[in-house]
Amino acid sequence: MSVEFRSWLVDQVTPHEIHLFRREGDMLATRTKFQSIEYVRTEAYGNILVLDGAVQSAEFDEYLYHEALVHPAMVQHPHPERVLIIGGGEGATLREVLKYDSVKSAVMVDLDGELVEFCKREMPTWHCGAFDDPRVTLLHEDGRAFLEQELTTGAPPYDVIIIDITDGVPDGPAAALYTQEFYQLCKDRLTPQGLMAVQAFALSMDLLHEHATIARTISAAFPGSQSYTTFVPSFIATWGFVLAHKQGEAPLTATQVDGRLAACALGDRLRAYDGITHTGYFSLPKAIRQTIASTGEVLRDA
Amino acid sequence: MSVEFRSWLVDQVTPHEIHLFRREGDMLATRTKFQSIEYVRTEAYGNILVLDGAVQSAEFDEYLYHEALVHPAMVQHPHPERVLIIGGGEGATLREVLKYDSVKSAVMVDLDGELVEFCKREMPTWHCGAFDDPRVTLLHEDGRAFLEQELTTGAPPYDVIIIDITDGVPDGPAAALYTQEFYQLCKDRLTPQGLMAVQAFALSMDLLHEHATIARTISAAFPGSQSYTTFVPSFIATWGFVLAHKQGEAPLTATQVDGRLAACALGDRLRAYDGITHTGYFSLPKAIRQTIASTGEVLRDA
Amino acid sequence: MSVEFRSWLVDQVTPHEIHLFRREGDMLATRTKFQSIEYVRTEAYGNILVLDGAVQSAEFDEYLYHEALVHPAMVQHPHPERVLIIGGGEGATLREVLKYDSVKSAVMVDLDGELVEFCKREMPTWHCGAFDDPRVTLLHEDGRAFLEQELTTGAPPYDVIIIDITDGVPDGPAAALYTQEFYQLCKDRLTPQGLMAVQAFALSMDLLHEHATIARTISAAFPGSQSYTTFVPSFIATWGFVLAHKQGEAPLTATQVDGRLAACALGDRLRAYDGITHTGYFSLPKAIRQTIASTGEVLRDA
Amino acid sequence: MSVEFRSWLVDQVTPHEIHLFRREGDMLATRTKFQSIEYVRTEAYGNILVLDGAVQSAEFDEYLYHEALVHPAMVQHPHPERVLIIGGGEGATLREVLKYDSVKSAVMVDLDGELVEFCKREMPTWHCGAFDDPRVTLLHEDGRAFLEQELTTGAPPYDVIIIDITDGVPDGPAAALYTQEFYQLCKDRLTPQGLMAVQAFALSMDLLHEHATIARTISAAFPGSQSYTTFVPSFIATWGFVLAHKQGEAPLTATQVDGRLAACALGDRLRAYDGITHTGYFSLPKAIRQTIASTGEVLRDA
Repeated sequence: MSVEFRSWLVDQVTPHEIHLFRREGDMLATRTKFQSIEYVRTEAYGNILVLDGAVQSAEFDEYLYHEALVHPAMVQHPHPERVLIIGGGEGATLREVLKYDSVKSAVMVDLDGELVEFCKREMPTWHCGAFDDPRVTLLHEDGRAFLEQELTTGAPPYDVIIIDITDGVPDGPAAALYTQEFYQLCKDRLTPQGLMAVQAFALSMDLLHEHATIARTISAAFPGSQSYTTFVPSFIATWGFVLAHKQGEAPLTATQVDGRLAACALGDRLRAYDGITHTGYFSLPKAIRQTIASTGEVLRDA
Repeated sequence: MSVEFRSWLVDQVTPHEIHLFRREGDMLATRTKFQSIEYVRTEAYGNILVLDGAVQSAEFDEYLYHEALVHPAMVQHPHPERVLIIGGGEGATLREVLKYDSVKSAVMVDLDGELVEFCKREMPTWHCGAFDDPRVTLLHEDGRAFLEQELTTGAPPYDVIIIDITDGVPDGPAAALYTQEFYQLCKDRLTPQGLMAVQAFALSMDLLHEHATIARTISAAFPGSQSYTTFVPSFIATWGFVLAHKQGEAPLTATQVDGRLAACALGDRLRAYDGITHTGYFSLPKAIRQTIASTGEVLRDA
Repeated sequence: MSVEFRSWLVDQVTPHEIHLFRREGDMLATRTKFQSIEYVRTEAYGNILVLDGAVQSAEFDEYLYHEALVHPAMVQHPHPERVLIIGGGEGATLREVLKYDSVKSAVMVDLDGELVEFCKREMPTWHCGAFDDPRVTLLHEDGRAFLEQELTTGAPPYDVIIIDITDGVPDGPAAALYTQEFYQLCKDRLTPQGLMAVQAFALSMDLLHEHATIARTISAAFPGSQSYTTFVPSFIATWGFVLAHKQGEAPLTATQVDGRLAACALGDRLRAYDGITHTGYFSLPKAIRQTIASTGEVLRDA
Repeated sequence: MSVEFRSWLVDQVTPHEIHLFRREGDMLATRTKFQSIEYVRTEAYGNILVLDGAVQSAEFDEYLYHEALVHPAMVQHPHPERVLIIGGGEGATLREVLKYDSVKSAVMVDLDGELVEFCKREMPTWHCGAFDDPRVTLLHEDGRAFLEQELTTGAPPYDVIIIDITDGVPDGPAAALYTQEFYQLCKDRLTPQGLMAVQAFALSMDLLHEHATIARTISAAFPGSQSYTTFVPSFIATWGFVLAHKQGEAPLTATQVDGRLAACALGDRLRAYDGITHTGYFSLPKAIRQTIASTGEVLRDA
């Protein structure tokens, strides 16, 4: 007499597209001071973290996102010792950063301590124990205020800054973390060979202009920057990033990347990233390059 | 630059049909020892309680379900004083029972204490404070074991027993609460004029045979019983119930129902139920009556 | 190496609810001068006819709708000989009308000849050959203009008029078929004992006010009228109808209905309709009766 | 009083994922001797062609697919004069081929003449008049039988063969067009510098092994071949292709591609393809390269 009832996780990707992921079993949902958290097991992608209704990270393909966010910057720096992560709640960005033995200090500043506690407790396959690494300093405060205060107190600068903010579009509550002034502040907190990596929204038809605006704003603050991308299936999109260089170098070649990874003994520890993947990241399709290169708005404070 | 992202609650009603409810804002989800709980705000139906992936109760139309479950039995009994509810987690069945001033004792036995705590805390518009009524005894144990023990100890019988079990189809964990032996036990615990009301699954094409099996099983234990139904929009279905009489009386007429409600001063306190509604409940469409009347399986222990 | 790909029919029931029906195999879609047609096979309901994106009729449950639309009026009339159907494209309304041997003439006026041709060709289980019955006159013109012209020419009046217009809400292109003046015209074209039956939208939360407006408008034109309803699963709704009487009689009792059906030798030929079903139709839940009875707009020409 | 009803196109991408595209207005659907056709207007991607329930091609992003399928092969050949397309119903593959002035003869062999007629009539933005080009020969017969016959009759060989078969997975009706023997036949029909390009399924988690099998099978027939990919948003996937060389050359560099496009005066006529895009196509992520490179099945006749 039984009928199997099944449920689905829904992501309204845009106003015009809805994506359903078949669920397995239970889910958790709660609310922090800053955002809603849902944590759902799906058949296609394992557990998925959803923040304020938007898919953030999926167990089976989060490595595609986090390796893309972290390694181009880390590999291009000759010897990254001090790294700052703004955002990065799940701990997977931190996990990738800590793979470099050169790193002596990794500071992670995520406003939402409750989210980080949730991720620590429920999502061990993301952080893999990274929060327990003695090199890590974990802070829960506003990322921009933190940088401004460090500038005042004369704290030592960073070799790499990674902006892994998950909470929405540039005119949302995190708007102050998307302006030219903020990126200038990041640049001021970098060592002379320093680099910044920024997660910068989907390169989809609806959102490409948001990426272009962020890329343009970063290029107004840094002497060199490039957009890059990788496909993340659970995001239903090719995701965009920006790599910014304080000295404005060219991106590395595939051979250089593979050489650096070999020198760091990282070749076998990365699932997605190597020299060819790196080349793919930075070889955007022509139509996307044209949109990004078009003139337009630069985001400013106020 | 913003795009509004929206999410949806999904109910896979049957293997062949999926229903999406547009969500508003956050949700809560957790797991008790017995089942998963999700509590989601929707635009069409307000908050919705989902247990193990199936919609259980929606804020805007739960009165349709709970008034149908409770009042036909309560009104047909001349003077209900002692009422037993098995299941009934949200407290809305209890709320309806307590509207009768004749009730001196309402015992609610719901196995899942964590669910009841959740409902008490998060769903006040369902219970409306019913759990605080001094006439109420709330127990968290197995409903059948409870009845068997009461039979042994010679506790006084009930005027009305309401079976409001929400956890799934008859071959699930609650299978022992759907057998002829269980219904016989209920009958044995009723006063001579006693009645039993049972929630008995959707009268939809896929599930009608489950209702018919339950109705048949109840009719094997009671001298008189009738199926009845009301449409509950958030269930995407006309829902089925069975009213069983220890003395096997005929259902009331509309005029009788209205007279009883007037005598109880309940007319203004019910949103769905009155004499005409009662007549509608018991006037099932011909095709459904034929299916229910067909011969078939009776559920037995073991 | 194969993966099964499946598709679904989607009905956005309201802005807040989307329903998916699992499809089987191919579909047909085309466009007439007046509307778009889609004809899709589903697992749950067999073939489904969709007009302008809205589900109109499903193979497995269309009898619930068409028996409800036709029989209360036909049974209440002592001897229906001349019947007019306005709309009714699929031919199933006609099919039900022709079951009465008393009927000597059935006139069907559906504006969209291409739709009727489609239904004739593709949907034989709906019309069951009704269009070939020698008692039938099929016309493709505007229903109101037809009635106005007949009034002028002094054509004999009808015993029953059935309004089975499918193309959308009252402010759509068929607005002139929802006004007090139109219903007055229908009344003028009825014999003294004549009745009119009107399909009148879902009694769901979003649409109940539309039904109430139509019911109110009809009651402004006829001395007696009642709303009634039946659940149609593929519509995801209890559907509303209005029965209007030129003489304002009371609805029949279950016993009267069964007597009339027996006299017409129709008992075995109807799947949903009989005396008890009839009683259920007219026993609306209290909350719905209250909304329908509330004062409000009456639709007028211009 | 109106409520807007909307519909959606559904693509069950895998058994575990369903994607909904919001529709605009009408759709067409029909059935040819070989497959079902649906043609639906969506808000996100314009008109979409659906064959046997699977999305084939969308107006707004078909150029991403068709430029990727055609240009890597055409550009690598020093002077393509004779081109064969197997499949290619919409005419967009043909449109891209005809952009090369060097092409003297383009033969398109698509089994389904009714589909091609549909595309000619309804989908002008795909073919852009390509079918009217005097260099084109359009045939409706089985692609493999055509090649076998040409081999027998000693017809002149082709410089480029493009396999653009849309009808499903390799064990479907087109299984004979996915075997080592078939690819060997293609190689035998190529000029010494000839190339073959094959559309080869999504590089998604569910389907990557199908691509790998095709790539492996092609590499068993050709001395050199490479997988490549581009993201096609309406496919909800990065799509896979294989480029096979009769002489086994290495892929071109970005500079070589841009030089060739300049020589052909094609730079301004392509929206997606240029040297950097080409580099991106062939720079697959590490995890995908590893799966493709793994040993496994080679498809053989019978």
